[in-house]
Amino acid sequence: MDKHALENYLLEQIPLARAMQLSVDAASPQALTLTAPLEPNINHQGTVFGGSASAVAILSAWLLGTARVQEEGLQGRAVIQRNEMRYDRPITGRFFATAEAAGGEDDWQHALDALRRGRKGRIRLVSRLVCDGKAVGELAGDFVLLS
Amino acid sequence: MDKHALENYLLEQIPLARAMQLSVDAASPQALTLTAPLEPNINHQGTVFGGSASAVAILSAWLLGTARVQEEGLQGRAVIQRNEMRYDRPITGRFFATAEAAGGEDDWQHALDALRRGRKGRIRLVSRLVCDGKAVGELAGDFVLLS
Repeated sequence: MDKHALENYLLEQIPLARAMQLSVDAASPQALTLTAPLEPNINHQGTVFGGSASAVAILSAWLLGTARVQEEGLQGRAVIQRNEMRYDRPITGRFFATAEAAGGEDDWQHALDALRRGRKGRIRLVSRLVCDGKAVGELAGDFVLLS
Repeated sequence: MDKHALENYLLEQIPLARAMQLSVDAASPQALTLTAPLEPNINHQGTVFGGSASAVAILSAWLLGTARVQEEGLQGRAVIQRNEMRYDRPITGRFFATAEAAGGEDDWQHALDALRRGRKGRIRLVSRLVCDGKAVGELAGDFVLLS
């Protein structure tokens, strides 16, 4: 997958992604990593605001879902239905959010098959946040793939 | 509580709140409502991006926690530990997020008493999202009050 094309798509579609100064660090059909600097996402403590951390994690999962649907040659989009987010440590600098299917490639095949048959595909995506080599938080989100 | 002072505090402390064009709609020791317009928070479908909805809900809860600690004359701050968020309907315009304690005033008294004794106060805050008079989503977050 072309990470520059994905980044342009993200920044065009979601103005808040520009405000957060997001970029795509890596992208494959199985995993997608977004990264953001501290400054535009800072809070009153000089660390990353939890809502920014959560939004970056959601976007990594959403962009992976959208990109994977396109990669398979399908018409469709990913919509979030619910998520849980855990904030494990203060995020003190540039951070990374890597999204993948909670259940691996089998989950993708199941969800994409449903979409091919004109039904809704359901998939749970997990995004792990890392700063300075340490795990700092994790989001799990339930997404629907719709044509 | 002075909603203009709270709004200024929010916009000074959290740059992303400025990018989202947040304002404080109402504030009392029991409940705080933030509001945001569609445009800076829009997604690829012309509705509110889930990460923005979640961030506004988190900020309503965080600002209520912070303001309540100050209102009680205590030194302290609110830190989010985890949250769950449900996205029930597309958000098609200006939206409102109203935060309050999940268990009402008893929860506040318990958490504030802990803070007064030099311990960590723990409180679960809920933020309900409304657009055009309809419930569109809900966040529940576990916060720690720290001195």
